Amino acid sequence: MIARTLFDAEHDTFRESVRRFIDAEVLPHHERWEDQGYVDRAIWEKAAAAGYHCASMPEAYGGAGADIRYSTVLIEEIARTGATGLGFGLHSEIVAPYLLHYGSEALKQHYLPKLASAEMIGAIAMTEPGAGSDLQGVRTTATRSSDGSHYVLNGSKIFITNGWHADVVIVVARTTPEGGAKGTSLFVVDTSMDGFSKGKRLKKVGMKAQDTAELFFDNVRVPAANLLGEEHRGFAYLMQELPWERLQIAIGAIASAEGALDWTLRYVRERQAFGKSILDFQTARHALAELKTEVQIGRVFVDQCISLKLAGKLDAATASMAKYWTTDLQFKVMDRCVQLHGGYGYMWEYPIARAWADSRVQQIYGGTNEIMKELIARTL
Amino acid sequence: MIARTLFDAEHDTFRESVRRFIDAEVLPHHERWEDQGYVDRAIWEKAAAAGYHCASMPEAYGGAGADIRYSTVLIEEIARTGATGLGFGLHSEIVAPYLLHYGSEALKQHYLPKLASAEMIGAIAMTEPGAGSDLQGVRTTATRSSDGSHYVLNGSKIFITNGWHADVVIVVARTTPEGGAKGTSLFVVDTSMDGFSKGKRLKKVGMKAQDTAELFFDNVRVPAANLLGEEHRGFAYLMQELPWERLQIAIGAIASAEGALDWTLRYVRERQAFGKSILDFQTARHALAELKTEVQIGRVFVDQCISLKLAGKLDAATASMAKYWTTDLQFKVMDRCVQLHGGYGYMWEYPIARAWADSRVQQIYGGTNEIMKELIARTL
Amino acid sequence: MIARTLFDAEHDTFRESVRRFIDAEVLPHHERWEDQGYVDRAIWEKAAAAGYHCASMPEAYGGAGADIRYSTVLIEEIARTGATGLGFGLHSEIVAPYLLHYGSEALKQHYLPKLASAEMIGAIAMTEPGAGSDLQGVRTTATRSSDGSHYVLNGSKIFITNGWHADVVIVVARTTPEGGAKGTSLFVVDTSMDGFSKGKRLKKVGMKAQDTAELFFDNVRVPAANLLGEEHRGFAYLMQELPWERLQIAIGAIASAEGALDWTLRYVRERQAFGKSILDFQTARHALAELKTEVQIGRVFVDQCISLKLAGKLDAATASMAKYWTTDLQFKVMDRCVQLHGGYGYMWEYPIARAWADSRVQQIYGGTNEIMKELIARTL
Amino acid sequence: MIARTLFDAEHDTFRESVRRFIDAEVLPHHERWEDQGYVDRAIWEKAAAAGYHCASMPEAYGGAGADIRYSTVLIEEIARTGATGLGFGLHSEIVAPYLLHYGSEALKQHYLPKLASAEMIGAIAMTEPGAGSDLQGVRTTATRSSDGSHYVLNGSKIFITNGWHADVVIVVARTTPEGGAKGTSLFVVDTSMDGFSKGKRLKKVGMKAQDTAELFFDNVRVPAANLLGEEHRGFAYLMQELPWERLQIAIGAIASAEGALDWTLRYVRERQAFGKSILDFQTARHALAELKTEVQIGRVFVDQCISLKLAGKLDAATASMAKYWTTDLQFKVMDRCVQLHGGYGYMWEYPIARAWADSRVQQIYGGTNEIMKELIARTL
Repeated sequence: MIARTLFDAEHDTFRESVRRFIDAEVLPHHERWEDQGYVDRAIWEKAAAAGYHCASMPEAYGGAGADIRYSTVLIEEIARTGATGLGFGLHSEIVAPYLLHYGSEALKQHYLPKLASAEMIGAIAMTEPGAGSDLQGVRTTATRSSDGSHYVLNGSKIFITNGWHADVVIVVARTTPEGGAKGTSLFVVDTSMDGFSKGKRLKKVGMKAQDTAELFFDNVRVPAANLLGEEHRGFAYLMQELPWERLQIAIGAIASAEGALDWTLRYVRERQAFGKSILDFQTARHALAELKTEVQIGRVFVDQCISLKLAGKLDAATASMAKYWTTDLQFKVMDRCVQLHGGYGYMWEYPIARAWADSRVQQIYGGTNEIMKELIARTL
Repeated sequence: MIARTLFDAEHDTFRESVRRFIDAEVLPHHERWEDQGYVDRAIWEKAAAAGYHCASMPEAYGGAGADIRYSTVLIEEIARTGATGLGFGLHSEIVAPYLLHYGSEALKQHYLPKLASAEMIGAIAMTEPGAGSDLQGVRTTATRSSDGSHYVLNGSKIFITNGWHADVVIVVARTTPEGGAKGTSLFVVDTSMDGFSKGKRLKKVGMKAQDTAELFFDNVRVPAANLLGEEHRGFAYLMQELPWERLQIAIGAIASAEGALDWTLRYVRERQAFGKSILDFQTARHALAELKTEVQIGRVFVDQCISLKLAGKLDAATASMAKYWTTDLQFKVMDRCVQLHGGYGYMWEYPIARAWADSRVQQIYGGTNEIMKELIARTL
Repeated sequence: MIARTLFDAEHDTFRESVRRFIDAEVLPHHERWEDQGYVDRAIWEKAAAAGYHCASMPEAYGGAGADIRYSTVLIEEIARTGATGLGFGLHSEIVAPYLLHYGSEALKQHYLPKLASAEMIGAIAMTEPGAGSDLQGVRTTATRSSDGSHYVLNGSKIFITNGWHADVVIVVARTTPEGGAKGTSLFVVDTSMDGFSKGKRLKKVGMKAQDTAELFFDNVRVPAANLLGEEHRGFAYLMQELPWERLQIAIGAIASAEGALDWTLRYVRERQAFGKSILDFQTARHALAELKTEVQIGRVFVDQCISLKLAGKLDAATASMAKYWTTDLQFKVMDRCVQLHGGYGYMWEYPIARAWADSRVQQIYGGTNEIMKELIARTL
Repeated sequence: MIARTLFDAEHDTFRESVRRFIDAEVLPHHERWEDQGYVDRAIWEKAAAAGYHCASMPEAYGGAGADIRYSTVLIEEIARTGATGLGFGLHSEIVAPYLLHYGSEALKQHYLPKLASAEMIGAIAMTEPGAGSDLQGVRTTATRSSDGSHYVLNGSKIFITNGWHADVVIVVARTTPEGGAKGTSLFVVDTSMDGFSKGKRLKKVGMKAQDTAELFFDNVRVPAANLLGEEHRGFAYLMQELPWERLQIAIGAIASAEGALDWTLRYVRERQAFGKSILDFQTARHALAELKTEVQIGRVFVDQCISLKLAGKLDAATASMAKYWTTDLQFKVMDRCVQLHGGYGYMWEYPIARAWADSRVQQIYGGTNEIMKELIARTL
């Protein structure tokens, strides 16, 4: 209802191209990918050919030097259509930025072009079995060799998006016995390194085409050159990057909710019960009016956060607000829209059913919404 | 916390046997059944051998002449353990009662023993594509032959639990052009009859081991003797039976919520985050205190409703209250418990994840919770 | 909808008498009492004449030796009619029981008959400025004189119901420097004692006819004989009595909600908007169906708690559940019913407006609902 | 947290002046005004002297020709401080604009300067006993005299803010027997006209210093020159003005919520319980984090709506969204903040207690929030 003012005509053109791409190359295959538990590697390559990966990276490193609104468009269209198998956002706007911001020139030159071309798929490994959203509680260790030439990594990571496809993984590990805020470092780990292994793909409630895996590090020798930035400063880097990562979740959340609302409006207009359309029932009308209102309000807020990000002013608490509130909203929208669909809302073939199951994890990953509230509470 | 007073020692003994049965014969296979989309027919037979089917039917018809508290125990233990593939309650306490209450002596003698022995599996076909919870809007027709010897059924039904396994189906059809409250009848349809066919099993968000199917009636000739009770009185019979059917959903809902609370309490006591157990966090403690309170309150209410049913005093509005409120609560419990499990709550191998997906349909079937509110509102 | 089974015919007769009493003697004066900030002393005496005070106390002490269902009826009818100025429940079922259970024979003989006859009005002083629901944090001190003949009380208490009318007050004070669970005692303080004074009546959002006051203790010499039970055991006594006190709040909460629902149903049936009655709007119907359901469920639960109390089996956690859940519900009912009244719901002359303002404090006093959740959480 | 970008330095200076004015001239008297049920007329005059009335009216008519951000500042500071007795917004930004937009030159020249100088106080009379938010159901009639020189008004209006102080009232009346969208007109009625009378001030739950009254029209002869705009077009004018009126409610709602959050944060930081500050309790921290988040999100949305209004692009549905969502939020904030204050939250002398009672009416007036949802639903 309120026109968005964030985008130029070029972004709109880009959005059209993304939509066509998803319609043609993604949606026809998505159910098969869900059944197999991962998307075809080919879709990564097709997306590379279309220039969708790492658009915001500098051209020198294979990117397009584009502003993050292009990435925003990509995240939005993937979310809106329920194409949740595509782990592109993580790859381009979480993994790549760590390399760009903290990697040596050599690391950047080696990895970024490969990410842009999808020769390599990227992942980031923070969460551990038994540590959850508690980044200071990481138990994976990285021990520096006596000659300083490399680090030896030991431990395991869980719930790693793109984990099964991944060729390169940013790994969070402790470099002092205590770990915590002052003893954590980030490493660029090639999955071809000895001692690295992938567990089985995790069977999830939703997000079924997204390959989520456990990763194991058994005396993996990582060259010292693969340390990101300075030793022991990993926690600070994470804190630096997390706001944008969380905003991306919020961007997806709102777009996904908008998409679900569209499907549902179409459904309740057409579907008859007791001799009239569902939309003729006042309780349905009010429920949808409420959802539309909250999605509109969330939309304005997220767009404001994107503007702040563009201006370099997005703070951690604001990003946490966006992450928790929009993902709560997203699930609320899905849940009510399922109910408005009646029995069809529970049938996997209906997009709303999948979106319902897919969306539930948004309140959990990227820092649970409870963690978000802790972060916001610190500013009280 | 409040001791239940509904059961005798014999019911408790029965409960123990059911628990052992589920532990030994059901849970080890349930994931496989989920993958295949239906339970093995053998489990129906094993349950028959254990005397679990049709316990409340008279001994003359193969039942045990037991009070409905035995059925209650069975429904509770199935729900508490998440063994949602077992469509036993529907078979014994929904399908069989229609035969007992409205069937001719011949129908009772023919079908009830076969249901008790699981020689036949029963289903009931109310919902149609495009009619949902609107029983008066049923479009399946049953046209009486000119010689009165049979009815010809045409139409289709959707979302039929036990629909794929079913050997006998109670079918709701209109016997006047207008249908509605005064032109609807119930028929006992053998799935071996010509013109009857089953659609594919429906892929659902949860309840994956429960075979849910579409049923098609293409000029199915049903003998007039298979009419249940009197012609055109089907709607009244449905209204008569629905309160107990809805209470069964409520019985399952509360037991399921109790089970989930147990799993979650165990999890949050053991699981550590930020150096303490999850249960040490005040927000988690209060969330669980709230859930425990509401489950306790729901438990007292459902037990009161069971007492009313035993006394023949359960009215439609009270059953609707029980159905809507407990299924809303059940899902609320599941949803918060998922969140308390963090990422693990989204992994299919965790019972809470399955219970979350399973429970969502309870707010929809058996009359959506919106329909329940309409029914309650009529008493205002 | 579900018939209550708790009461005998005699209780029903008593209820009729209470209703007539409230209609004739209370409601015609209530608005005046609200304006003056306290009820006339005469109403206490009229209620005494009708035998309403201390009904559950033994006849030997001026009571009627009645079971607590009579008190329940009294609390319910006061709540249902919004006659919140009457602090009878506190007087008869909180203050008197402390005397009965822990007082010496002399204290019982002296005070209980006077409470029954309303010669004296009773109050209990727990809460202090700065301590709130934290009974272990009480700072009022009671120092035993060197000869053991008396205690000297110093400190102040706040939010004391009946505090301005009170002639006798049960005072919670610390008798060791640390206070807390092992150093707290209870005293029977005559308000005529030297050094005792009452602050001004507190101006509240609602409950305007109930005299709530601050009390000050400035070297009040209380005879040692006025110690209730044993020294330092006050906290244990409080823990013993609180479940019944909290259940009384719940009893009032449900009755009050039932009353509000009645008023509102009458209003929405009669009131027209947009050419039909408010009750013809589906959103209003569903809102009322939800409220009716929750009130029914709460009613069944509270009646179950009363049965447990009668059987001597009411535990602290269950009482806490009843207190928090029903008072949350009471306010939810009031708030939605206000909205259903539109602008009239905000006009003081409408009972729903007063009941809305009155009910808000129920979530706060008697231990805040947050404290209730802490108490429940201890049983997890 | 997110800096507002709506205001220039001049607006900020104005805000400072308004704050000083409220601190010095309003707050010291507000409790007295609450007790008397209306603000002193003198405060209207002092505000006029400070240039606070009708700032957005053209200078030619006594205004300051200022943009509506000045009015926004005034509304915000009144709301933030809980100075709800001041009906300035209604006077300057609802009543005056009707005159400006639809009044003849004579009407504008006569009334607007008097409103700006507070020689006259303005009100608008829409709501009737028995019609509520249903503007099409207005029953007050305006019958044109046969010579066309005047209209005769008969009927009554209720819940009229500024109604007791008012010197001039915009009256909504039907000018055809059917009334409704095509037979409603607006009249400028001088309260000195014969046949006009004011009822008693209404005793409300909150907003106690705001004079709300019933108005009666008994054959009031209103000159035809006092018709606003064209005959029968009143409904269209109302639809035109209502979005801005509703946005004003939203502006107040968010500012009020911000104010309450500030008071509460101060309280929970200082107040101790169980040996630590309230803010040290995780449940309190999360509750406040949630409120802060929603208030921030509401703030961004309302500022966006103000920008739309400045650009002439505020549509009816968006204004309805703002009105319903922010007033629901406002009350939610108040209610949780009361609970965080414990017993003090129920004491009238605490600003949060008053703000709680004051804010409840915001969900009702200006079109109930249910009406807002109807309006939004029309755009689905």
